[in-house]
Amino acid sequence: MFTVEVSDHIMIAHSFQGEVFGPAQALHGATFAVSAAFVAEQLDANGIVVDIGRAFEVLKEILAPINYRNLDDLPQFNHVNTTTEYLTKYVFDRLAEAVRTDRLGRDGHEITAIRVTIAESPSARAWYEAHLW
Amino acid sequence: MFTVEVSDHIMIAHSFQGEVFGPAQALHGATFAVSAAFVAEQLDANGIVVDIGRAFEVLKEILAPINYRNLDDLPQFNHVNTTTEYLTKYVFDRLAEAVRTDRLGRDGHEITAIRVTIAESPSARAWYEAHLW
Amino acid sequence: MFTVEVSDHIMIAHSFQGEVFGPAQALHGATFAVSAAFVAEQLDANGIVVDIGRAFEVLKEILAPINYRNLDDLPQFNHVNTTTEYLTKYVFDRLAEAVRTDRLGRDGHEITAIRVTIAESPSARAWYEAHLW
Amino acid sequence: MFTVEVSDHIMIAHSFQGEVFGPAQALHGATFAVSAAFVAEQLDANGIVVDIGRAFEVLKEILAPINYRNLDDLPQFNHVNTTTEYLTKYVFDRLAEAVRTDRLGRDGHEITAIRVTIAESPSARAWYEAHLW
Amino acid sequence: MFTVEVSDHIMIAHSFQGEVFGPAQALHGATFAVSAAFVAEQLDANGIVVDIGRAFEVLKEILAPINYRNLDDLPQFNHVNTTTEYLTKYVFDRLAEAVRTDRLGRDGHEITAIRVTIAESPSARAWYEAHLW
Amino acid sequence: MFTVEVSDHIMIAHSFQGEVFGPAQALHGATFAVSAAFVAEQLDANGIVVDIGRAFEVLKEILAPINYRNLDDLPQFNHVNTTTEYLTKYVFDRLAEAVRTDRLGRDGHEITAIRVTIAESPSARAWYEAHLW
Repeated sequence: MFTVEVSDHIMIAHSFQGEVFGPAQALHGATFAVSAAFVAEQLDANGIVVDIGRAFEVLKEILAPINYRNLDDLPQFNHVNTTTEYLTKYVFDRLAEAVRTDRLGRDGHEITAIRVTIAESPSARAWYEAHLW
Repeated sequence: MFTVEVSDHIMIAHSFQGEVFGPAQALHGATFAVSAAFVAEQLDANGIVVDIGRAFEVLKEILAPINYRNLDDLPQFNHVNTTTEYLTKYVFDRLAEAVRTDRLGRDGHEITAIRVTIAESPSARAWYEAHLW
Repeated sequence: MFTVEVSDHIMIAHSFQGEVFGPAQALHGATFAVSAAFVAEQLDANGIVVDIGRAFEVLKEILAPINYRNLDDLPQFNHVNTTTEYLTKYVFDRLAEAVRTDRLGRDGHEITAIRVTIAESPSARAWYEAHLW
Repeated sequence: MFTVEVSDHIMIAHSFQGEVFGPAQALHGATFAVSAAFVAEQLDANGIVVDIGRAFEVLKEILAPINYRNLDDLPQFNHVNTTTEYLTKYVFDRLAEAVRTDRLGRDGHEITAIRVTIAESPSARAWYEAHLW
Repeated sequence: MFTVEVSDHIMIAHSFQGEVFGPAQALHGATFAVSAAFVAEQLDANGIVVDIGRAFEVLKEILAPINYRNLDDLPQFNHVNTTTEYLTKYVFDRLAEAVRTDRLGRDGHEITAIRVTIAESPSARAWYEAHLW
Repeated sequence: MFTVEVSDHIMIAHSFQGEVFGPAQALHGATFAVSAAFVAEQLDANGIVVDIGRAFEVLKEILAPINYRNLDDLPQFNHVNTTTEYLTKYVFDRLAEAVRTDRLGRDGHEITAIRVTIAESPSARAWYEAHLW
């Protein structure tokens, strides 16, 4: 099983609803280091899992609408706690759509799974992984 | 599958029995960077895997009795080589107990697996992972 | 010249005034990894630059009032762009005051300089350094 | 499931065939940080997955013939794109052979899987993992 | 003294002349993680050392002509060993020119010094620093 | 001013005398990541600060007698607290001797300064730097 992973980062503001969050209920923010990993059983004829250049581009396109934003103001996050783990799934869903519509430069059916990792600080991170088909 | 991981570190002394360890048979020590990862199929109503604050606290509580200690002197490690991989399981077992007794701020049955990673140096680390139920 | 450096991090929201900031004029946020370095010509009788435990505590005390906050709302940052470089000086000033009032567990006159480094992302950081006396 | 991972690095030149590679079609190079992870269900009588000293040696032996080389000139890579993901499998195959011939200081049948990770830059890496038996 | 540092990376091939280089006399390559640090006595009216966006752009422009190249083929490196330390000065000189011609979004005279750091591997790096005026 | 830095690590046990050390008065240990930086005004005829291969060897030779040891048992550390900052100077002194006796592959007078950095954990490190002549 081959995997290729590319990384980027965003800088966002947000707040959380729920006592469990303690001081993080207040409006605060985070630098999220986001990594997108694509899994394939076999390399393609070029010897790659996906076109790494496109992988960087697609990840950047998915992150652009939420970068330098207050996530509390965005309609797609209405009534949602935009926790690190929630956002791993948010990015996963958009990467999965990109794979299924062949935007990674390879027949999407050959990408079997995706894992999205988001580090929120030097001591905490989250990831979401699932098969695509 | 969602995972949240928190990290801490300890500074311990120990020695190993067995020729395979070469110079590490002598009393020496290590800074162990310890990461605890908790896995769940679904996020809870707050949008989290576990209460990350409690995860940090529970990890710190588990590490406290062995931090700043010579592991050779501790009764729980009697006649045991406290290798990095052995310690990943030692921390795993205590985290698993914490999850099963609902100390992570969520019904323990919703946490499906744990992975404990310990880095002993810039070039070597070990991890133990297993399902909980 | 001896230096000891300790690190912590904060998660804040803020916005910037000025076209130069482009998309960062909007309310966004950051995880700031903050390192405080203390410089001395000589070690003290214990063989240390400063009590590292106190160094961690003092840094945490200085960061606490701005951690998990929207810096735009804090009176001490009124009409100020709380850029990464601005904040290095903000933390420096408070550490310098702590050193001058002997809160680091050593006669402050023996600490000759401080450097504060703040990493805002994997690819950008800033630092401020100056002599104390 | 226990895993132990050791790391080393190599510095190589190579070029790629195929439009998908864009500017990387030209002769260029990379520092590859290579990590080899060995998986076992149980620790051995010494409390280890494998002899970590041998793991470092075996990894170094496998990397030596390709370190400080132009991979385009090596016969084993004739008509092959030596992409990061391709090389993870190349290293995996040689580590698998070492395990199967008991060169890691333990009955090879007790090592169930290997994962090889290669980081090519601060923002891109690849890995290959598979069971051995 | 304030400093802001931005980072990027390049992937190059090259070889060295001289017995001191041992196996690195052969054509090989490197991923160079390049950091550019700009020093100023005072922040400007916006509260910054330099426009960080321009700093990223200028660094990328300087690195573009040598990225994905065999440095042995480039006329500017004729009869030169393009060691890591040599390249720190090469990048420094071009950044200094950019500062002196006010391309960093601030009067160049207010930037007092530059430091360029290049990491060639997890265990080796070099830097060059000098005053500008 | 050019600097080249190489890194290695050691794993040691030790204890400290003095109330200021709190729990670190007990026998414990550390992984010390040690970096040695050599400074020169000019590159030599090969385009280097020092022979990086010799720099790695000399650093390793200096660290060997204290690696995998309990520092409390070593005569050179009798009645001394082997703090991280103390050890930076210990390594510095031995590197300075190596430079002065031309063991770095260059006339020692051309190396103007050395800086030794030791990281003891992800959140604490120390360094010592001084001119050589």
